Amino acid sequence: MNNAVIYHRAESNYCFALDTKTVVLRIRFAKGECIDSVSVLYNTKYEFSTKQYRQQLSFLCTDEFFDYYSTVLHLQDSRLAYIFEICHQGTTEYFCEYGIVPRYNFSLSYLDSFQYAFINSNDVTQNISWLNNAVFYQVFVDRFYKASNKDESYINAKWGELPTPKSFYGGDLDGICQKLDYIKSLNVNALYLTPVFCSISNHKYDIYDYYNVDAMFGGNDALRRLVEECHKRGIKVVLDAVFNHISERSEQFQDVLRNGDKSKYYNWFLVDGATINAERTNYCQFASCNYMPKLNTANPEVQQYLIDIATYWIKNYDIDGWRLDVSDEVSHDFWRAMRRAVRAVKKDAALIGENWHNSESYLRGDQFDGIMNYAFTKQMTDYFVYNHCDEQQLAQRLNGLLMRYTDTTNNMMFNLLDCHDTDRFYSLVGCDKEKFLCAFALSVFMAGSCNIYYGDEIMTEGGYDPDSRRTFDWDKLQQPSTKQFVQRVAQLAQLKQQPALQNGSIRISATNNTLYVQRSCAEQTLVLAVSNKQHFTIHKQPPHKK
Amino acid sequence: MNNAVIYHRAESNYCFALDTKTVVLRIRFAKGECIDSVSVLYNTKYEFSTKQYRQQLSFLCTDEFFDYYSTVLHLQDSRLAYIFEICHQGTTEYFCEYGIVPRYNFSLSYLDSFQYAFINSNDVTQNISWLNNAVFYQVFVDRFYKASNKDESYINAKWGELPTPKSFYGGDLDGICQKLDYIKSLNVNALYLTPVFCSISNHKYDIYDYYNVDAMFGGNDALRRLVEECHKRGIKVVLDAVFNHISERSEQFQDVLRNGDKSKYYNWFLVDGATINAERTNYCQFASCNYMPKLNTANPEVQQYLIDIATYWIKNYDIDGWRLDVSDEVSHDFWRAMRRAVRAVKKDAALIGENWHNSESYLRGDQFDGIMNYAFTKQMTDYFVYNHCDEQQLAQRLNGLLMRYTDTTNNMMFNLLDCHDTDRFYSLVGCDKEKFLCAFALSVFMAGSCNIYYGDEIMTEGGYDPDSRRTFDWDKLQQPSTKQFVQRVAQLAQLKQQPALQNGSIRISATNNTLYVQRSCAEQTLVLAVSNKQHFTIHKQPPHKK
Repeated sequence: MNNAVIYHRAESNYCFALDTKTVVLRIRFAKGECIDSVSVLYNTKYEFSTKQYRQQLSFLCTDEFFDYYSTVLHLQDSRLAYIFEICHQGTTEYFCEYGIVPRYNFSLSYLDSFQYAFINSNDVTQNISWLNNAVFYQVFVDRFYKASNKDESYINAKWGELPTPKSFYGGDLDGICQKLDYIKSLNVNALYLTPVFCSISNHKYDIYDYYNVDAMFGGNDALRRLVEECHKRGIKVVLDAVFNHISERSEQFQDVLRNGDKSKYYNWFLVDGATINAERTNYCQFASCNYMPKLNTANPEVQQYLIDIATYWIKNYDIDGWRLDVSDEVSHDFWRAMRRAVRAVKKDAALIGENWHNSESYLRGDQFDGIMNYAFTKQMTDYFVYNHCDEQQLAQRLNGLLMRYTDTTNNMMFNLLDCHDTDRFYSLVGCDKEKFLCAFALSVFMAGSCNIYYGDEIMTEGGYDPDSRRTFDWDKLQQPSTKQFVQRVAQLAQLKQQPALQNGSIRISATNNTLYVQRSCAEQTLVLAVSNKQHFTIHKQPPHKK
Repeated sequence: MNNAVIYHRAESNYCFALDTKTVVLRIRFAKGECIDSVSVLYNTKYEFSTKQYRQQLSFLCTDEFFDYYSTVLHLQDSRLAYIFEICHQGTTEYFCEYGIVPRYNFSLSYLDSFQYAFINSNDVTQNISWLNNAVFYQVFVDRFYKASNKDESYINAKWGELPTPKSFYGGDLDGICQKLDYIKSLNVNALYLTPVFCSISNHKYDIYDYYNVDAMFGGNDALRRLVEECHKRGIKVVLDAVFNHISERSEQFQDVLRNGDKSKYYNWFLVDGATINAERTNYCQFASCNYMPKLNTANPEVQQYLIDIATYWIKNYDIDGWRLDVSDEVSHDFWRAMRRAVRAVKKDAALIGENWHNSESYLRGDQFDGIMNYAFTKQMTDYFVYNHCDEQQLAQRLNGLLMRYTDTTNNMMFNLLDCHDTDRFYSLVGCDKEKFLCAFALSVFMAGSCNIYYGDEIMTEGGYDPDSRRTFDWDKLQQPSTKQFVQRVAQLAQLKQQPALQNGSIRISATNNTLYVQRSCAEQTLVLAVSNKQHFTIHKQPPHKK
């Protein structure tokens, strides 16, 4: 047995609580290791040395290098001590915190068993259940639909023209409101809007007033109307929290520009020197955009300022959550405080990070619920676009992603094919409708939510920003071939309401040229089969036998 | 190359910040892997795709299964993207977030490099520098020394008799105060006292009044005197925070006993049912001690109650930190809140958990500074007592422990040979003075603090509780052979003030029957060599060449 590879750790993605009496255990072996059986020997920590219960683990999945086994323990007591008993080629060995041993001395287990010492209810990762079956529709507001009851003098581009970084088309919140029935017809149940607060740009990621919706988008009343109309239709509303940086036009940054280290806002930013230099290069910025000075989210004043904003829009406009822009550059300590404050005003408000990399340090249940799953996006492009992997490898890679985090977290991930910060997926797959639908079906079957980036459903093309932010082609929507495609997207989206696709177990495997994603719950089993990147089928099976 | 075993993860014990511009990287390979060189290619995350700096890693250490390499990056910018370049048998490969690849496409690095996206100052684990060179003296108060200015009617045992679980000998805080010059002569610079607050037991882990020092121990004034006298001598004072449970005699539990779920304290405890049953088995307890009902530390009211206690004794009596009893059963969320509150009143107050197992989930810089290092204790008993490992294996195991946590955390660990909850180490080694001193020298050379459990320095014997809590034998201290031993202990303790032993680098290795621990800093290198469990030498070397 390859002992160097066997892995388990308590209170991690290998051992996590679903509630104070239910714990999921995973253990990892070298791939292809011929395990006869692996069981957990366990009891409450104070009785473990004298008596142990036994439960066998089941094979869970395989990725590139490892085989995983898993089981769910239902406990009488929230204090767990345990070790693993591994039968391998006729030999029985034990796996404890110090590794594999041929015999285990239970009387010394207080020193070397695994332990989940006590499951405190407030430390259990909360499942925000509406994220489990959310079908998001992401709208880049300036480009979706224009209502005509406002000052339109800022509009400088004609609907349908290709966008430049400076184009304004006039899309707004009332426009979205007018098209809600269309959005609802896609079987969408959640709306994610790119930023809406006061900003001079079309994308509005440079906000100078977080308490007002930009007049271009219709002002605060338009947001109130939109949220109300969404809620009437069972659609949640998630806004974009741009808390990593602020606009240079904000009163805080302007004050620092004028007063340097004499400003009361000096420590809101990370300035190298007493004053901002003439070239404006001596302060920390978002990327290298000097019009977006980075906020110092380690500063308690900044933290309180941002938390007040986060709770204001929930308390006063009843929004349902925040997508957190550039969240990986913002203080962990701040996100913890923000989560406490947000949950205190709405107990199922969602917090979805924009993290592009492995995010275990943000996804322990104390900060975000999920993240925009760019790791999933990467696998979809590697497979469907670049042919960097075959079905077997794709299955392994997706399993690897699922093993990064707990099941609870996996079920709250925001799975996406594309967004305003990527190429359009439809263009990436060479405008191949079947490939697009195969990938979208996979996103629907993944654990967590799925997303339709506005226009994906009408085969919108586009390269990287600004080309990924074209105006919605309402004329194209009227064409029969478009309508047919829209309907196929909507049918797939509808599947997300099937019980098995909410938080049923997930098993991903492949044979020959077919990838299988099986989701199972007590009521049903659904299997998605994707063959040769071109064809998919969905089977319903009788309830999953355990 | 064994790709399944190569491991690195950003923002973990493999990648951690010392400050906002300094990051330590570790990478792990299979043991004995013939690496020609491993380098990190890095830059700020927004420039990484077009330009990379290169820095070679050095071999760090080896444990049972792995070889570790490490380097320290000094950054211009707090946003880090990086991958590793590995030269192995003439081949160059790259290691990124998705594993080993033969060629790396830097233009896609936004998806698959490693990233430490931004180092926010408040997320960096704070080094409490006095813990780096602390020599603790742990006192079980009832058993150390008795001052004679109080009501002694509770004393039921004669000094020198073997203790029972119910023995009271009369040791108190004024007694410790009177012996502070003796304690100081041991080259001790920190005192850790088992609990001192009101409680009817001799150990006082069942507290009914957290705002008063028990009269048996001299009351609050005695604590004030003790802290003042300690501080005069440069000795820090750490008290025992028993926050997992409370005494059955506490007003809160008494109220629940009387009023059941009508009590305002009902949710302070974890009661199964509306009232406490007659057998008193239906509420969560410490272990199975029904006189110690467990507090529900998930309850915000309980959190505030305990935090107020924690800050009260710092603000009003100037204590220097808390040892946290049964800390692994208490809410993480609570510990985070307590840390914030405690640090706000004393910025270098220490928080030392009583965790017996791998405690990565408590040692990320947001909860404890260090823990009682029972994993180290286990290695000392495995080697010196049970002969479960030879020198080579001991070196590997100690290296494995150091690789569990960051360097910052390692330098704040509380290394101990024994305490009130173990057998006396001197008894465990069969009263072998040289073995004891070898082990103590190792505890002095380990990263972090070391500890003398009262009486260890006079070769006190004893088995498990209550026998590990014998009275201090002041007569024995007068014997020449004892004095000689005390002096040897004190000389070793004094070494802890050498710069290299504070937070110098640590290298542990072994050849034949000798274990080496090398500590190096800019000024000096000290090497401890322990041979055959019986003999140790200490060498000073010229400054460590990098």
